[in-house]
Amino acid sequence: MLISKVVGTTVSTIKDEQLTGRKLLILRQIDESGEVFGKPYVAVDTLDAGAGDLVLTAHGSGGRQTAITKNSPVDAVIMAVIDHLNIEGRTIRR
Amino acid sequence: MLISKVVGTTVSTIKDEQLTGRKLLILRQIDESGEVFGKPYVAVDTLDAGAGDLVLTAHGSGGRQTAITKNSPVDAVIMAVIDHLNIEGRTIRR
Amino acid sequence: MLISKVVGTTVSTIKDEQLTGRKLLILRQIDESGEVFGKPYVAVDTLDAGAGDLVLTAHGSGGRQTAITKNSPVDAVIMAVIDHLNIEGRTIRR
Amino acid sequence: MLISKVVGTTVSTIKDEQLTGRKLLILRQIDESGEVFGKPYVAVDTLDAGAGDLVLTAHGSGGRQTAITKNSPVDAVIMAVIDHLNIEGRTIRR
Amino acid sequence: MLISKVVGTTVSTIKDEQLTGRKLLILRQIDESGEVFGKPYVAVDTLDAGAGDLVLTAHGSGGRQTAITKNSPVDAVIMAVIDHLNIEGRTIRR
Repeated sequence: MLISKVVGTTVSTIKDEQLTGRKLLILRQIDESGEVFGKPYVAVDTLDAGAGDLVLTAHGSGGRQTAITKNSPVDAVIMAVIDHLNIEGRTIRR
Repeated sequence: MLISKVVGTTVSTIKDEQLTGRKLLILRQIDESGEVFGKPYVAVDTLDAGAGDLVLTAHGSGGRQTAITKNSPVDAVIMAVIDHLNIEGRTIRR
Repeated sequence: MLISKVVGTTVSTIKDEQLTGRKLLILRQIDESGEVFGKPYVAVDTLDAGAGDLVLTAHGSGGRQTAITKNSPVDAVIMAVIDHLNIEGRTIRR
Repeated sequence: MLISKVVGTTVSTIKDEQLTGRKLLILRQIDESGEVFGKPYVAVDTLDAGAGDLVLTAHGSGGRQTAITKNSPVDAVIMAVIDHLNIEGRTIRR
Repeated sequence: MLISKVVGTTVSTIKDEQLTGRKLLILRQIDESGEVFGKPYVAVDTLDAGAGDLVLTAHGSGGRQTAITKNSPVDAVIMAVIDHLNIEGRTIRR
């Protein structure tokens, strides 16, 4: 799983019908200091995450192992909202 | 999912028979400013996307969770055409 | 799918028995100008591609959605030979 | 599989219900000298690994081939704790 | 598939029970000149490969399409030992 921060939202009218009503958030990974890095990517939100939240995303077929994403053409899902991380002795919160 | 722009098309006479009639578009990712970056890749278009459109692509087995791509030797599909994105306070349109 | 050029061949006597008779070609990706870049990788050829051909390769489980690669320990297949590409207004042929 | 070191832990109250009771550890890869590199990622721990341990992680659907991770929205699992590695004539231990 | 050289071995006492008796080798990719590059990774060996051998590795679910790796928490397998490669007019042997 990747450790990422919610940085945005997407709006799409034309999409695969299995995505109707799905919330697709934009994320960027964070590093061991809690700083965002890398390019934005998109994951389905099933946990009502919000802007600035730190989350974990599962990728590939792992992104479809939830009731909401099953059999949909998606490859990433937010499967946990992070309270805090302990990395190399440092505590990171949103 | 990756956030990408449609930048081209492919023409192939010799291909796996399951790809007959499929529209294969060339894409490049966009960054948090809406600028394209990275190398071109190819995805199946099931939504009639056109040149310059911003789209989301699902990869891996997720690329085969549509009626059109099911059981085909493909690994990426356009599953949403983007109206607009909100990234870090900025709005991005095609 | 990746856009690549056929740059070589592999010869292996010791291999998984499901690979007997399979043609494994070496490829390198091409960029938006048609120039090869990146490190070589290997895909199963089911379309009789030859040296210098531009092809599309499907990866992961997508590489096993052909009659020839089904259930084999492979992760990439050539599923189209490219006639030409149109990328950002430029036409690219082999 | 990737060769990594356990560098941290995650705490999440809001998560997919299939993750209840799962231990999610933060890892970073090590190189051929045993030095950590790259950005942190998260894997499910099924082997009671601890901080500083060297481990192997399996990714993608491979991360769900254990009794604990089966059918869960995860994409990485610790499937071995390393006693030692022999890389290019050098022995590496935790 | 990736083109790699066997550069080491792993020893693990604590591991998923499906890995008992499995030989896990350390590999590094080679480039178009036959030089190793990149960080080490681990694959299951089903072909009795040895140190210095050039091999092909299949990744993801492709790594579990052998009798030995089926249903195991692994994501890479050595599925061919290379006799020689022909890349861009050059012959590469171990």
